[in-house]
Amino acid sequence: MPSPLLVVGSLAFDTLETPAGHAENELGGSATYFSHTAAWLSSKVRMVGVVGKDFPRRHIVEFADRGIDVGGIRVVASGKTFRWHGRYQKDLTDAETVSLELNVFGKYAPKIPRAFQKSPFVFLANGSPVTQRTVLDQVDKPKFVLADTMNFWIETEHAALMALIQRIDGLILNHAELLQLSGQQNVVAGARWALAQGPRIVVVKKGEHGAMLFTEGDFFALPAYPLEHIVDPTGAGDSFAGGFMGHLARTGSTSFDEMKRALAYGTILASFAVEDFGLRRLFNLTSEEIDRRVAEFARMVSVDLAEEPAGR
Amino acid sequence: MPSPLLVVGSLAFDTLETPAGHAENELGGSATYFSHTAAWLSSKVRMVGVVGKDFPRRHIVEFADRGIDVGGIRVVASGKTFRWHGRYQKDLTDAETVSLELNVFGKYAPKIPRAFQKSPFVFLANGSPVTQRTVLDQVDKPKFVLADTMNFWIETEHAALMALIQRIDGLILNHAELLQLSGQQNVVAGARWALAQGPRIVVVKKGEHGAMLFTEGDFFALPAYPLEHIVDPTGAGDSFAGGFMGHLARTGSTSFDEMKRALAYGTILASFAVEDFGLRRLFNLTSEEIDRRVAEFARMVSVDLAEEPAGR
Repeated sequence: MPSPLLVVGSLAFDTLETPAGHAENELGGSATYFSHTAAWLSSKVRMVGVVGKDFPRRHIVEFADRGIDVGGIRVVASGKTFRWHGRYQKDLTDAETVSLELNVFGKYAPKIPRAFQKSPFVFLANGSPVTQRTVLDQVDKPKFVLADTMNFWIETEHAALMALIQRIDGLILNHAELLQLSGQQNVVAGARWALAQGPRIVVVKKGEHGAMLFTEGDFFALPAYPLEHIVDPTGAGDSFAGGFMGHLARTGSTSFDEMKRALAYGTILASFAVEDFGLRRLFNLTSEEIDRRVAEFARMVSVDLAEEPAGR
Repeated sequence: MPSPLLVVGSLAFDTLETPAGHAENELGGSATYFSHTAAWLSSKVRMVGVVGKDFPRRHIVEFADRGIDVGGIRVVASGKTFRWHGRYQKDLTDAETVSLELNVFGKYAPKIPRAFQKSPFVFLANGSPVTQRTVLDQVDKPKFVLADTMNFWIETEHAALMALIQRIDGLILNHAELLQLSGQQNVVAGARWALAQGPRIVVVKKGEHGAMLFTEGDFFALPAYPLEHIVDPTGAGDSFAGGFMGHLARTGSTSFDEMKRALAYGTILASFAVEDFGLRRLFNLTSEEIDRRVAEFARMVSVDLAEEPAGR
């Protein structure tokens, strides 16, 4: 039976320049990518965020049509929605920020609606760890809280981030950020360090190199789904998190076996997200396409090593 | 039944500086790493290379004791063995070459002993593609030839390398080199390009990010074995190739299922190689340790996705 899954993060309009083309005022934001991927797996996704008066009401209707509970989206009539303009180079790694307007997201203090406070699964999308903490203070004994972060907060809000990490169940971040946060040179050492701070699990996102899952006693890793053409990497990390948490929420379980499957669903949902600008591919997806790609991916990563002795 | 496996490459003395320490005049070289890893899996490894008068005879005896056929190691009494001094920075990626003396390896023209000419499996270690071609000209209808290369040859011997690639069954190279060789920005596109030049398979080495195997119709990928402490990454690629080809040679098969297993053995043998300087760990290894790590790795990469429907 699916468990409610709460996400708190941004809703945005992105202008995107990639080697594949250009898109203006594309619907984006961490909470948007997360909830739209999670909603492919789980029927009880709850979204908390803020938009301005320029945010078309039809988007919120569309979110609701996809089964997302939009009761936590606040509309600030006096302000504008968060806007980001990013430009990717040929290798599609880091985006250069051409312009950034935080607008209503700048001073946003998330308020979790009473009906959302009992959400067993919670995703704290990338944001100030101070703000992330205020969300934790408002939720009622969640079963599993996953938090994302980034280099900016590691540098500017280190103490608040360290305090937050002690209170969460899972930390998700990219490879370079884990090394930066931990001060380690090696991802395994970095993950050990992070686990020692409190979380039960650490998920390391490595883009085209896949993802890793660390717990105190277990390790699991997957390559990325191989894509020849990537149109827009924006939102890949939040889509990954959406697939991961969407799977856990639909099973209601945080067993290591389900977390392994969740890592695969994160991989697959992220692979769809990057096939077109913004959320376009996530809107044009079908359950059958997801099933087909998951089955294909399962074959791509399976190897039978049981019967092979190493001896000469 | 194991099939003979021929390797042609370098034997060297390496001086190694890594964050973990320092080692002088350590036994090294591509053919050395390759044959010592392959010999853990297959009993018919044949080594072709050249050394100088400074190369202690006891090493050659040790190689033979490990079941390696040393009948192709030429000793040039008038010269010195290839020497390399490398220094790694903290992140253990590229080594800075402090000094390089090609010595007898500089003008080496490999001569394949008559007894080695019928070797079904052949590994052309990194070297000039012109020299690699002369080896191909001397072997008698091998079943499967794998060739390694590097940025230096891509830049300086491009035409010869392209001619070589048309004649081999498998190309193995690292991620950056595949992008450089193919002129592509994406590893999947790069592998497609490489397959179109002739080889049946392309193996992409990505160090800590694992490895990928491409054929015309299939794809397989594995993460690296997670190591917290890496002492010396020298020889990791040749050890990977040794595990890969050692497994194929012992099974005598080049089916896609065996290539998948071979990729896992390459991963595991490389993971041992980097745990100590030079070949020390490969000398101190046991078959039981290999079996144990392979079994552990099998658990680390296995996920059951068969029973999961994506539908909401």
